Amino acid sequence: MALEKLSSNKSFEGDLIKYKFKSSALGDLDTQFNLFLPANASKSKVPVLFYLSGLTCTEDNAAQKGSFLGPAAQEGVAIVFPDTSPRGAGIEGETDVWTFGVGAGFYVDATNPKYAKHYNMLTHVTLELPKVIQEAGLPIDFSRQSIFGHSMGGHGALTLYLNSLRTGKKQYRSCSAFAPVSNPINCPWGQKALGEFLKGGVEEAKEQYDATELISQLGGKPVHILIDYGTSDKFYQEGQLLPENFLKAARDVGYDEVQVRVRSQDGYDHSYYFMSTFGADHIHFHANFLKA
Amino acid sequence: MALEKLSSNKSFEGDLIKYKFKSSALGDLDTQFNLFLPANASKSKVPVLFYLSGLTCTEDNAAQKGSFLGPAAQEGVAIVFPDTSPRGAGIEGETDVWTFGVGAGFYVDATNPKYAKHYNMLTHVTLELPKVIQEAGLPIDFSRQSIFGHSMGGHGALTLYLNSLRTGKKQYRSCSAFAPVSNPINCPWGQKALGEFLKGGVEEAKEQYDATELISQLGGKPVHILIDYGTSDKFYQEGQLLPENFLKAARDVGYDEVQVRVRSQDGYDHSYYFMSTFGADHIHFHANFLKA
Repeated sequence: MALEKLSSNKSFEGDLIKYKFKSSALGDLDTQFNLFLPANASKSKVPVLFYLSGLTCTEDNAAQKGSFLGPAAQEGVAIVFPDTSPRGAGIEGETDVWTFGVGAGFYVDATNPKYAKHYNMLTHVTLELPKVIQEAGLPIDFSRQSIFGHSMGGHGALTLYLNSLRTGKKQYRSCSAFAPVSNPINCPWGQKALGEFLKGGVEEAKEQYDATELISQLGGKPVHILIDYGTSDKFYQEGQLLPENFLKAARDVGYDEVQVRVRSQDGYDHSYYFMSTFGADHIHFHANFLKA
Repeated sequence: MALEKLSSNKSFEGDLIKYKFKSSALGDLDTQFNLFLPANASKSKVPVLFYLSGLTCTEDNAAQKGSFLGPAAQEGVAIVFPDTSPRGAGIEGETDVWTFGVGAGFYVDATNPKYAKHYNMLTHVTLELPKVIQEAGLPIDFSRQSIFGHSMGGHGALTLYLNSLRTGKKQYRSCSAFAPVSNPINCPWGQKALGEFLKGGVEEAKEQYDATELISQLGGKPVHILIDYGTSDKFYQEGQLLPENFLKAARDVGYDEVQVRVRSQDGYDHSYYFMSTFGADHIHFHANFLKA
């Protein structure tokens, strides 16, 4: 699993580096990711934020458009930008719709045999990427990880975070999301994707792939969650995101505004223009926990 | 020349709006531009920055990747993002190379009859866009304009600015550029483009389309210029940018560090990762003059 460096761009005194490697989690397909290393990483290991992108994105979109690098440089935090799915699996139907398959791996480990060899983004993000980065000797302190994401990647961030609390692994110190798919078992995007990837369908998803279900199970355990969504987001309006369901479930089991903060942002949409507006806020939120 | 609004995205409490109109300067072709209006534009007219993009870009690239909107919102300054050329002229050869023609109008008014009907980006940026924006009743104060740009757009910003001083129009209060093509009559990109667009070729370009020639002619008149370029910029290394020529010409006619500041940025390249690093600096530089 040797890393091949494809490019490097200096940014905010740090470096945005693109790597490629053959991923066993993704069935031995080549995958790429971007890593932002702030300048202070040349002196000592730095904490790390994983950023999970939304539907159709690659490892590049948020690195280019998210306005995250400046605040991360200022806080001295690295960011890993994975891809959103395996590429090149050649499975029938994986490119038929933009909401499922290529560019839309939903951060699950597939149990449907049709997808199980390649679609293992959960393992890719939580285990494989930390392992290959560590083995490459890059200056990341994996005892200090947090996670954030957008839309489908917000679903990924929330479920990976909540699962790591549920199972006692506590891999991530904090979680934030922009316009996350918050209750996928109850929205068309989630029902389609989880229904296809999991042999037990939506029922199987409840245990670990639905943020609203997960937060209900966790009542009592300390969490640090920040969510922003825009009221003019058309996917919010059409019921793909359902942040109110997540918020209600959190409040119902006793989480307050400090533990689970969900902000409705008036007039903002689903785009990177929305995300970049609140990007610095999210980075600073995580830095509080990563640098503690 | 009625403006058609194509989209609007809220960003940093302001709005990034995409417009389309039939441009007479570009030979009655449709053209598009983006306008960022900061929140304070709802109360009173705001000053404006014109941003000129580089080769192959459209009105979108810098709006998405430049990290300019946050600082502009903070300073209460609008930004106009024009396209980089006419599109759809159908002139033979205009799409043969990426450094000339479509996506590469070089901000000149063509005098070669082959291009003269459509390739008039100078008039488009300096006269037509202010006129259509004003006629649409948008809240821009055109008595307070400044200009900046990247690469070919840095050439555009410098030459439009210096020309408006040379001719006494003083349209812009300040000028800045990222990795500008600073002496086009002496680099391959400039020689090709100016040689094609102008019937008098490179010789004709000297009077108004070469920043190094222009600054030499201006000695004494007050200027406010900021330039950043990266030492790892491959186009700098291959001699397309020549910022040292511009700097030498400026110093030779007596401009000091305050009037003409040219900064060599160690290890940075030609990308938006470079530009976004220094974007806030440039916005704040212009705001000093626009808000005076």
